[in-house]
Amino acid sequence: MSDGFDLIVLGSGSGGLSVAQRAARLGASVALFDPDALGGTCVNRGCVPKKAMWFAAQMADMHRLAADYGFETTPMRLDWARFRQLRDQYIAGIRRRYDARLDAAGIRVIRETARLVSTDAVATQAGTRASARHVVIATGARPRRLDIPGFELGMLSDDIFALESPPKRIAVVGAGYIAVEFAGVLRALGCEVDLLVRENLLTGFDGELVEALSLQMQAHGIRVLRNVRVTAARGRPGDITLETDSGAGYGNYDALLWAIGRTPNSGDIGLESLGIACDEHGHILVDAYQNTSVPGVYAVGDVTDRKALTPVAVAAGRALADRLIGGLADARFDDSAIPSVVFSEPPLGMVGLTEQQAHARYGDTVSVHSSRYTPLQWMVAGRSEQSVVKLVCVGEERRVVGIHVLGPGSDELLQGFAVAMQKGLYWHDLKTAIAIHPTAAEELLLLH
Amino acid sequence: MSDGFDLIVLGSGSGGLSVAQRAARLGASVALFDPDALGGTCVNRGCVPKKAMWFAAQMADMHRLAADYGFETTPMRLDWARFRQLRDQYIAGIRRRYDARLDAAGIRVIRETARLVSTDAVATQAGTRASARHVVIATGARPRRLDIPGFELGMLSDDIFALESPPKRIAVVGAGYIAVEFAGVLRALGCEVDLLVRENLLTGFDGELVEALSLQMQAHGIRVLRNVRVTAARGRPGDITLETDSGAGYGNYDALLWAIGRTPNSGDIGLESLGIACDEHGHILVDAYQNTSVPGVYAVGDVTDRKALTPVAVAAGRALADRLIGGLADARFDDSAIPSVVFSEPPLGMVGLTEQQAHARYGDTVSVHSSRYTPLQWMVAGRSEQSVVKLVCVGEERRVVGIHVLGPGSDELLQGFAVAMQKGLYWHDLKTAIAIHPTAAEELLLLH
Repeated sequence: MSDGFDLIVLGSGSGGLSVAQRAARLGASVALFDPDALGGTCVNRGCVPKKAMWFAAQMADMHRLAADYGFETTPMRLDWARFRQLRDQYIAGIRRRYDARLDAAGIRVIRETARLVSTDAVATQAGTRASARHVVIATGARPRRLDIPGFELGMLSDDIFALESPPKRIAVVGAGYIAVEFAGVLRALGCEVDLLVRENLLTGFDGELVEALSLQMQAHGIRVLRNVRVTAARGRPGDITLETDSGAGYGNYDALLWAIGRTPNSGDIGLESLGIACDEHGHILVDAYQNTSVPGVYAVGDVTDRKALTPVAVAAGRALADRLIGGLADARFDDSAIPSVVFSEPPLGMVGLTEQQAHARYGDTVSVHSSRYTPLQWMVAGRSEQSVVKLVCVGEERRVVGIHVLGPGSDELLQGFAVAMQKGLYWHDLKTAIAIHPTAAEELLLLH
Repeated sequence: MSDGFDLIVLGSGSGGLSVAQRAARLGASVALFDPDALGGTCVNRGCVPKKAMWFAAQMADMHRLAADYGFETTPMRLDWARFRQLRDQYIAGIRRRYDARLDAAGIRVIRETARLVSTDAVATQAGTRASARHVVIATGARPRRLDIPGFELGMLSDDIFALESPPKRIAVVGAGYIAVEFAGVLRALGCEVDLLVRENLLTGFDGELVEALSLQMQAHGIRVLRNVRVTAARGRPGDITLETDSGAGYGNYDALLWAIGRTPNSGDIGLESLGIACDEHGHILVDAYQNTSVPGVYAVGDVTDRKALTPVAVAAGRALADRLIGGLADARFDDSAIPSVVFSEPPLGMVGLTEQQAHARYGDTVSVHSSRYTPLQWMVAGRSEQSVVKLVCVGEERRVVGIHVLGPGSDELLQGFAVAMQKGLYWHDLKTAIAIHPTAAEELLLLH
């Protein structure tokens, strides 16, 4: 096969599918190359199976809360194999729907790894070749590895989903949202969890809320160990010990999870020979329009230096198709206020600036309004863990430039406020809005 | 006692407390009359204990979902007495905090029923008298009663909270949110529930979503019986039969709940002699500034003809204090888009106009965008119940004038969108916003 298309996409994750489908809908002929399962990280090894596990964890937590609420009940145990089967069936269903949608859209899907041979042509090892005016790289990222002794004793986040049984005692090494989410889910499902953090937990999120989350994680039985630099893993699968640069050792783990960041899949796809610029970590550098340094070649999603979130990849992909195929010369997505939620226990969310970022940008005109409260369902159960909401405002009119939320409901309540903030949200808007009572969401209206 | 104050408030519910506290903070001397528990309906017999019961119901539902998720577990039973104790302790705590706050604010609280003796004076049966420039009526409402044989065999919504044990088989008569919420909660906690509806369910909410909710209620085992006009209750407590105008009988109930609307507490407080105008149901007529037909006398909350929701009473009370005491001559609250949520199973929410209302007001320029989807947590469990989201838009720019949501998460996700809508929300805003994935909230961004 050697075919001419309007658009070639490398990678069928959230970014690649978006650009391919939008371009096809706009009338382009599209070829999509991916040797792996449709859906990329999000569907197969990320957001979706993670959220399914988070729901299982929520059920386990809810069940414990139920006991404190006056329910007579016996301990609940997850049949891991059964749950895995249900989750995998669900994901297989999503992939089938993607397959059908790509087919209906007339997109040519080639299940091979392609590399760029020129700015307008790709080739696979099996000899498939294709050319197009536009080539979009959407090859995503993979878990980062460390070059330390015994690294292979640990799992990567991808491997968690394939586990045949839950670990009894696991060390999670990392400080980002993946580390925090798996620590929370595994703890809720009954594992003993140590979270080994090199420096700061959840950099980029509000420090005060992260601290409050850390306390709640510890109250749930997760050991959060800070300033720990793991230098080696020793032992054998089922009995693992970690060595650190301070000399302290941590041991007796039957499982180990490395969640220490992600590496873009930018190698071996022909970037160097075409002179496509990357940062020192290998992320493809793109401008606001997803242009790489080489005309005719674009990139979207986790392989780029933009925020590694599914909805960002989707927005980038759609805008790019609108521009390249739809004739909207100025199409780009607004990345000024990207909301994000950590599916921790309880969830943590943010949109816009942190206090520190706002002070750096706006100085003394920044005002911060926050409150802590114990949610109704916990109060009734006699618990005292606190949710936290925080607004970061600027100027006399107190324009809202940052919203930070921690606690049950934070995962669902943030989206609408993020939309409002993007439109220009002021203190006065919140004070004159009518609340929905009793909810967690209304707390953002009740600040002083 | 016969004292002069700046402001007198009759009633310590959400509206009364708001106006009293805001006025006191602005420097007014305030007297607050209420013979009953501080907090009124919301805290003692409404939103708060209801939400506590809803959480218990959520736990029971979550536990059933957990079984479908692969959790090995045994049936869970609520120790009703234990739960009641926990719930009542929580509410007693709220009342104590109100008490302390009123005390700190220097508000004189008189635990007696007062009636107006003139436009600037009130008196109690025990002989307490007080006068003020401003008198605010915030006496709330109570469950409506029917004048039919056997009415006394049934409970009112107030009584549900005092039940010593859950009913086994209950008839809930009514079609409003109170009927729907109690039907859902009691069903989730294991009761057999018949919901007897005179005409339409949840008038005022989007018809399509109400229909979808009704189907889910029936899938949960609630018998929803429409076009049933109950004419009498027969039998004895523990064995109740209902007669209807069609001749059909419904029976073998050990409990009966009347949830057939609410009646304003506007009688016996001196309104007639002062000529304060009420509608045919007894609601005090107020203008946008909470003025009654008689200068110097104002009303807020459920006793008025405005929407009977706690946040509406609170907003009205605060605006009124700002106007009467704070010198903000034009203070009033914006009631153009009051969001509300029914804590059904699953929750139902709306803000703004329904399709029908929008068509009536804007004719052919209305466009409606809706979608149905099965939430992730139900898909994994092999369930097929669908959530529904709907936008009602106007004009070529598709300004959003109504948002309707049904499904898990609807309770928390609506508030932020309601804030955005009040600011002027357009289709384009939603299409260019960055989603939070995977959530229920993002579905409002993904409509076609």
